[in-house]
Amino acid sequence: MPILNKDMTLCISLSARPSNNGTRFHNHLYEQLNLNWIYKAFAPTDLAQAIAGVRGLGIRGCAVSMPYKEDVMALVDELDPSAKAIDSVNTIVNTNGHLKAYNTDYTAIEQLLKTNAVPTDYSVLVQGAGGMAKATVAALRDAGFTDVTVIARNETTGRALAEQYGFQWRAALDGGTADVIINVTPIGMEGGPDSGSLSFPEETIAAAKVVFDVVALPAETPLIKAARAAGKRVITGAEVATIQALEQFVLYTGVRPTDEQVRAAEDFMRAQ
Amino acid sequence: MPILNKDMTLCISLSARPSNNGTRFHNHLYEQLNLNWIYKAFAPTDLAQAIAGVRGLGIRGCAVSMPYKEDVMALVDELDPSAKAIDSVNTIVNTNGHLKAYNTDYTAIEQLLKTNAVPTDYSVLVQGAGGMAKATVAALRDAGFTDVTVIARNETTGRALAEQYGFQWRAALDGGTADVIINVTPIGMEGGPDSGSLSFPEETIAAAKVVFDVVALPAETPLIKAARAAGKRVITGAEVATIQALEQFVLYTGVRPTDEQVRAAEDFMRAQ
Repeated sequence: MPILNKDMTLCISLSARPSNNGTRFHNHLYEQLNLNWIYKAFAPTDLAQAIAGVRGLGIRGCAVSMPYKEDVMALVDELDPSAKAIDSVNTIVNTNGHLKAYNTDYTAIEQLLKTNAVPTDYSVLVQGAGGMAKATVAALRDAGFTDVTVIARNETTGRALAEQYGFQWRAALDGGTADVIINVTPIGMEGGPDSGSLSFPEETIAAAKVVFDVVALPAETPLIKAARAAGKRVITGAEVATIQALEQFVLYTGVRPTDEQVRAAEDFMRAQ
Repeated sequence: MPILNKDMTLCISLSARPSNNGTRFHNHLYEQLNLNWIYKAFAPTDLAQAIAGVRGLGIRGCAVSMPYKEDVMALVDELDPSAKAIDSVNTIVNTNGHLKAYNTDYTAIEQLLKTNAVPTDYSVLVQGAGGMAKATVAALRDAGFTDVTVIARNETTGRALAEQYGFQWRAALDGGTADVIINVTPIGMEGGPDSGSLSFPEETIAAAKVVFDVVALPAETPLIKAARAAGKRVITGAEVATIQALEQFVLYTGVRPTDEQVRAAEDFMRAQ
């Protein structure tokens, strides 16, 4: 790290339970790119006062995590379409006191559907209605997909999510198949109760053309492993996590690091 | 510097024109003492919002400089006697959202009068009515000095300052002498228009027992040099600056560094 000095631009994150990921990822990129910036995670005691501090101290960027992603909307000056599309903010950029809010999870999913050239006439099954489901479903709609079914046991949240974006809801997969299958449940997540489980059955994987898992840790979930073994095109949650963090970095600094620099920052982030 | 991490405790300074001094001094001590803390100077865009940020982000300590030392009083929860004595704050300590304000300039002058065992029945001439004059005059009164004269060309501020603490005011030195002579004007300050000038005439220095200059840069002002040459006991502005910064550090961290550690931090601070 460079010796700290008064001129450093500060970026922060706000989360009830911060991890070290953002602090390590961003600071490593600052160092690689020789930017006089620092990044530090905070667990705020009061959201409105923390956002006042972003303005009053001239903090350039502010990542927003659970449980502040919705409440923070009322505290900013402008919502980017990425945040508006899913009523959820994960990034705030402060330009001379004007706070503009984004959602780079949405941006990342939107980008990945595009760069993987997933045809919009493919049928899609989205399993789950939790944190990332809204970003996924909204990105599908905005990309032009029309044949999308949300699978969620909880009818209230599942049906509401599907209907908000003009899609279908079903309580269970029931042997269903589609061209694109997307897992947005915690199944397969490291440290979770279902870390070893497949989030879709083998026959659904076999019938799919594209398999997308938003679980980021591990990068190779049981679903992704099975899909690779079956020769499917895969999109991983690790890619979502990388792109969303990278887009935050670009929004704050205006600088786009190379793939190699991003990989080095990710390696540093994981080497905790 | 250590690799930045989410658990670091942040201390900051608020000033319209920050210097690098605090950032270098505090961070160097953190490093020497192996404290997982960082310090960063800020030029706030809005004082009330910046103080809200101190609360909302759980920032532990906040140094306050020009022009915020008075305005910030209304934004804290409690005034320590050191701040109350001079209606001026240069240090805020945040303990679980409770902001207590101090003035360590006052504390430093109080300490130096004590450690130098200056007898309280000595007569005192204080020349100047600016920034540090109030801290000096209040510390003299609170230490028990009674024969104190404030010398200031501006009658409004000079007389008000003297009378607030029960002392005399005079517009000019006019050949006056005293046991203790204290310069609180910018005369002798590096980079100032009177950097080469003596703030008291030779005969006043000759008649004094203790010579005190609150000008911190250079440590060896023309007044201090002349007083040393005349064999007087001297108290320097550099000592005031060191003690006030050290007391801020102790208030924030609860840790008192050794003299050697403080010297190393000061050397690092000056090596810019």
